[in-house]
Amino acid sequence: MKRIFEIDPWKIISHDLNPADKRLQESMTSIGNEYMGMRGMFEEKYSADSHKGIYLGGVWFPDKTRVGWWKNGYPEYFGKVINAVDFVSVDIKLNGESIDLAQDKYSDFEVSLDMQKGILTRTYTIHRGEAKLKVTSTRFLSIVLKELYANRLEFENVGSVPVRVEVASKIDADVYNEDANYDEQFWNVLGKEVSAKEGRLVAQTIPNNFGTPQFMTEMAMFNSGDLEAVDLGQTAEKEVVNTLATELAVGAKANFEKRVIVTTSRDYETKADLDQATSKLLDLQAEKTFDQLLADQKEAWAKRWQKADVTISGNDEAQQGIRFNLFQLFSTYYGDDARLNIGPKGFTGEKYGGATYWDTEAFAVPLYLSTADQSVTRNLLEYRYKQLPGAYHNAKQQGLKGALYPMVTFNGIECHNEWEITFEEIHRNGTIAYAIYNYTRYTGDQEYVTHDGFDVLVGIARFWADRVHYSQRNDKYMIHGVTGPNEYENNVNNNWYTNMLAKWCLTYTDEIAAKVGEDKLAELGLNQAERDKWREIVAKMYLPEDEELGIFVQHDGFLDKDLRPVSAIPADQLPLNQNWSWDHILRSPYIKQADVLQGIYYFIDKFSPAQKKANFDFYEPFTVHESSLSPSIHAVLAADLHEEDKAVEMYSRTARLDLDNYNNDTNDGLHITSMTGSWLAIVQGFAGMRVIDDQLVFNPFVPKDWDGYSFHINFRGRLLSVNVDKAGTKIDLLAGDDLTIKLNGTEETLTA
Amino acid sequence: MKRIFEIDPWKIISHDLNPADKRLQESMTSIGNEYMGMRGMFEEKYSADSHKGIYLGGVWFPDKTRVGWWKNGYPEYFGKVINAVDFVSVDIKLNGESIDLAQDKYSDFEVSLDMQKGILTRTYTIHRGEAKLKVTSTRFLSIVLKELYANRLEFENVGSVPVRVEVASKIDADVYNEDANYDEQFWNVLGKEVSAKEGRLVAQTIPNNFGTPQFMTEMAMFNSGDLEAVDLGQTAEKEVVNTLATELAVGAKANFEKRVIVTTSRDYETKADLDQATSKLLDLQAEKTFDQLLADQKEAWAKRWQKADVTISGNDEAQQGIRFNLFQLFSTYYGDDARLNIGPKGFTGEKYGGATYWDTEAFAVPLYLSTADQSVTRNLLEYRYKQLPGAYHNAKQQGLKGALYPMVTFNGIECHNEWEITFEEIHRNGTIAYAIYNYTRYTGDQEYVTHDGFDVLVGIARFWADRVHYSQRNDKYMIHGVTGPNEYENNVNNNWYTNMLAKWCLTYTDEIAAKVGEDKLAELGLNQAERDKWREIVAKMYLPEDEELGIFVQHDGFLDKDLRPVSAIPADQLPLNQNWSWDHILRSPYIKQADVLQGIYYFIDKFSPAQKKANFDFYEPFTVHESSLSPSIHAVLAADLHEEDKAVEMYSRTARLDLDNYNNDTNDGLHITSMTGSWLAIVQGFAGMRVIDDQLVFNPFVPKDWDGYSFHINFRGRLLSVNVDKAGTKIDLLAGDDLTIKLNGTEETLTA
Repeated sequence: MKRIFEIDPWKIISHDLNPADKRLQESMTSIGNEYMGMRGMFEEKYSADSHKGIYLGGVWFPDKTRVGWWKNGYPEYFGKVINAVDFVSVDIKLNGESIDLAQDKYSDFEVSLDMQKGILTRTYTIHRGEAKLKVTSTRFLSIVLKELYANRLEFENVGSVPVRVEVASKIDADVYNEDANYDEQFWNVLGKEVSAKEGRLVAQTIPNNFGTPQFMTEMAMFNSGDLEAVDLGQTAEKEVVNTLATELAVGAKANFEKRVIVTTSRDYETKADLDQATSKLLDLQAEKTFDQLLADQKEAWAKRWQKADVTISGNDEAQQGIRFNLFQLFSTYYGDDARLNIGPKGFTGEKYGGATYWDTEAFAVPLYLSTADQSVTRNLLEYRYKQLPGAYHNAKQQGLKGALYPMVTFNGIECHNEWEITFEEIHRNGTIAYAIYNYTRYTGDQEYVTHDGFDVLVGIARFWADRVHYSQRNDKYMIHGVTGPNEYENNVNNNWYTNMLAKWCLTYTDEIAAKVGEDKLAELGLNQAERDKWREIVAKMYLPEDEELGIFVQHDGFLDKDLRPVSAIPADQLPLNQNWSWDHILRSPYIKQADVLQGIYYFIDKFSPAQKKANFDFYEPFTVHESSLSPSIHAVLAADLHEEDKAVEMYSRTARLDLDNYNNDTNDGLHITSMTGSWLAIVQGFAGMRVIDDQLVFNPFVPKDWDGYSFHINFRGRLLSVNVDKAGTKIDLLAGDDLTIKLNGTEETLTA
Repeated sequence: MKRIFEIDPWKIISHDLNPADKRLQESMTSIGNEYMGMRGMFEEKYSADSHKGIYLGGVWFPDKTRVGWWKNGYPEYFGKVINAVDFVSVDIKLNGESIDLAQDKYSDFEVSLDMQKGILTRTYTIHRGEAKLKVTSTRFLSIVLKELYANRLEFENVGSVPVRVEVASKIDADVYNEDANYDEQFWNVLGKEVSAKEGRLVAQTIPNNFGTPQFMTEMAMFNSGDLEAVDLGQTAEKEVVNTLATELAVGAKANFEKRVIVTTSRDYETKADLDQATSKLLDLQAEKTFDQLLADQKEAWAKRWQKADVTISGNDEAQQGIRFNLFQLFSTYYGDDARLNIGPKGFTGEKYGGATYWDTEAFAVPLYLSTADQSVTRNLLEYRYKQLPGAYHNAKQQGLKGALYPMVTFNGIECHNEWEITFEEIHRNGTIAYAIYNYTRYTGDQEYVTHDGFDVLVGIARFWADRVHYSQRNDKYMIHGVTGPNEYENNVNNNWYTNMLAKWCLTYTDEIAAKVGEDKLAELGLNQAERDKWREIVAKMYLPEDEELGIFVQHDGFLDKDLRPVSAIPADQLPLNQNWSWDHILRSPYIKQADVLQGIYYFIDKFSPAQKKANFDFYEPFTVHESSLSPSIHAVLAADLHEEDKAVEMYSRTARLDLDNYNNDTNDGLHITSMTGSWLAIVQGFAGMRVIDDQLVFNPFVPKDWDGYSFHINFRGRLLSVNVDKAGTKIDLLAGDDLTIKLNGTEETLTA
């Protein structure tokens, strides 16, 4: 645990710049607007360790897969987000020498990410003898005009001698990925233009052998303010630079502004189209002053917060935690583009390749359902519908029928490179179906599930029906050779969670089949014989249980292990993934993240309290929560079991995971998809929110150390406010038609 | 299956040069002398596809491991044999233009590997209009002077016009590995010298980050014969060249000879030492003519054949097969250097990295015990003793006590890169111990097992004692998370073979402990408490069995599979590893190579005929024999069960595996360690040879299609000749003291 930012309800703020924590600080001060995002690296030179990362949603490269020995069915490439052409760098020279906080003497450092407004500011004063320059940087990625990045640098001569300030504002395609299998650069420059205060650069990704798109991107900058253009001089082959300068008398101030329009071939086909669109967008942004742009940004963020804010009374740390999580989630994804999704690190790092995981459906969908318009989640579902051909391809690669959604993807095709994950961690297929069910249950919208969603369900059902095998000796259908959500086991047989979910998928698809039109059934070639086969599999699906313990068994053989709880492990051996060999981990009973319990969470109202308690009490003591996705599920279950202390303990591990660098890995980027966890813990856990039989249900409690909490919820066209404090719970309908909900077991009808 | 060589009892001979089969031809005409070896690529230019490969025993490079996502306990590098500095190339120019059989018109091509003499010859006639040149090449790697390579080229003008012949004889360090993770070149040139007919080049492997040796190698050539030196001209940076030429009148002949001395830093520490040793060796070889060297080579090979030859009457294909296998095995290893071992491809290719596998102990030791001096096998055992520190290191990397011998190694440290192999395929540890047992049983030598061998046994026993876990629920010790010999299963629990072998190791080490001195026990810190713990594990080791089927169960859950025999697989889906996804293979019941049956083979006389039959009849139908190590074990077991047809069928899959390119992969190199298979099938299978209670036992039969077979056997200082034909078996003692053997159940005392 390491906390480098101060507690503040709306800001991520620090007055320190510790080179050892630079990457961590950069991760924490990331900004994004769904279309693109960036880490909080400095504009100016910083010569010590730093990770300059800018990423464009949906712009990726298929890096040749690096594995040991190739086997049939392994994916050919590892898809990864590309570190974009750098449009942020502005070299600042004070009296001819670059400012460099890794070398210069400075004072009054402050960095502050304003989550309410979506703006990152930074200020410091450079000391070079009698020359002292105060620099203030303000930057944001517009959520009003997605292609716009804006940055203002304010200079003030606070020393006792005049100074010269010179800025070199750049667009630079000479960038590397932190994570490239063969250390290649991914960008070729197609063209560039430069004038005194403007510059453009068009770049394209290098060719690849896999037939995936070669993305083009155009960056166009417009530099303005109080500084005057000076000679360009020589620039490197892969960059365009505008150089501007001014002399500052003692006490004088000057502003510099850089705005960049970023367009890509995701939206415009040819270079000519890109050029034209970029020019229009440049004109559009020029209509507003920097302060007007700031005001627009603030207003747009205010609208988001109105729908989704969670307030926590009496605990500022918790308050900061939940807002940070919501801010970063919304910076990563807000449903504007159904071709985009939510990478585990969002735009804050390269780990996990910036690709889409099952995290979206399992952890993000519930949050977006409640905190944003229905269309946002619908877009997440459409994303998977669009990728159905890729999912069919994945199954075919394994010699299987139906659709296998990928563990990791940009285009529907599997692009991870560990066999024990790619074709064994197939439970994700169940979660893709579960998200459709979840959306339908929450919104009441039957249209998706009976149309495009049904195509997805049938593809998934067909996969499961082919992936099971019949064990004659047991007269059961089984699923061998899987990895469950607990990735600390590989290649196990009959993972209860996977088998249960596969069975549920077949049942649910069969149920929906009864509701879709005949022409849809005909289109998909789904006949009664196939549905009968599904029913046979459902009837004979093997679900490992242990009667003596009254639990579902994680997988065959789990109970044969050396079953000592996590509490028996010496503290210095935790976390296991940093201290134990993979061999040791695989053979141990320790669970990385909810596995059986993930299944119980999905269908929390379908299991008896005794079942839930027996499984929670058995499995939680073996769980090390070394996935950031783990604690939230346990928090919800513990709350459901009225184990309030346990629920709060689990909540505390998810709420400030990055703010407190809990897993000592936030320097690589934020745990974006895990950021839903604190919201899930509060809303589904502490407030006990469920949707049961089309009705919103709450069973709230207040954590001991809190005075209370409140949040807004969108539900079927209504906006509700839920306030929970020690005195009780108050639920208000802020907008929309009357609604009957159930609070602590009693129905209540709300009127706006 | 593809047969490109003619049937001949002593030669590998072909009159075809099909470019599509060039690599296959090169593999088949490989030569070696344990110290070094090479594929049968041409000396002269060949512009079509070819794999020029020359390898020096024990000279390797730790190529950075290429894996997906790193986990603790993964090996850091993948060790691989380095394609050596090329000392073979001789560019031959006819009238100023290089001879190139991929482009030139030619006739009378013949390539012939003489296995009796250990010499490779090749001849052809080039046709360029009226110019016709006959070229004959003779090459060998001396088994008398290991550092010597010798090559003679004979030129004859068989055309109707005079011609000019020019040769450029090279030492060239500008070589690549077929298999390098990052496409690097591994050699830096440290120095070179060149005169008219001599040239030297010293090269060193590039630095590595793993602290393994940077090997130096010196190549010194001496060119002689009828050709005159001509101007050197410009040579490339990484090569030395001698150019010699002559004019040949019509009908005239001329000889060219190239001899190369190869020394390495394995034997000489500094460059100065290398230089000095090389000079001495150059002088030494100069004392003999080429024909004298040829005669020495023939005589030395004759001695080897006298001890080991197997003759087969009535089946020339089988005769050629067994000789080819013995020839290539002896070319790869003949026990001269206890620091060397037997790579699965020997010196014939780069697959498997040229490293040491458990193949040596499991498959090669029995052959060398019978066909070579006892010291040869003893050296193979010493190899492992020397690497004991590496084995302790490997166990420690996994957080385990004791010694874990590597799956793949040059220095004792694991250098393979698939987790499911490296720390899961731990059964190899048992085979290291078994080889000691096997050596002791065969030779009667108690010295090794009670001294250095005991260190090895204790390290291995300590590993097993820590690697098992106690399952409370079953009151049994278990071994979870392993891969058995059947690599078509990964990460299984309680592999019968592994558990059985682990139990045996503990028992055997405990037995030997009773025979070693007190000081040895003290040196190893082995006390009664530790031995008692071993005994407890032995008493409670879980060995999965199925009473109903009367079989040992390959591993937990195997019987839950969809158990359809191999005969149910459509023929076009075989071999599975080329047609099925890894997912499909893992979940299927199909067995790559003997697994339970490997264990029964090891202790063939400890199981009842009923046990052997039940297990063979159950497992063989699921076995696809897609490891070249599989058929021989099945041949021995089938013979033991008097299933003679099955034994012969299995023999036929091992005898000419490479000669007939049975698995369609011999172009990559020969299956050197599998070459023991045909010998095992004949001697242990058809002849039923065993050593039981210090006595040699035979129970022979003759395959239907053979008239008979005979072989020589070394046993405890004796040389025996065993002749089996339809009339019966005749065993003669050719040398050594009287010996009582058992033939078909009857004791016989043999006198020389």
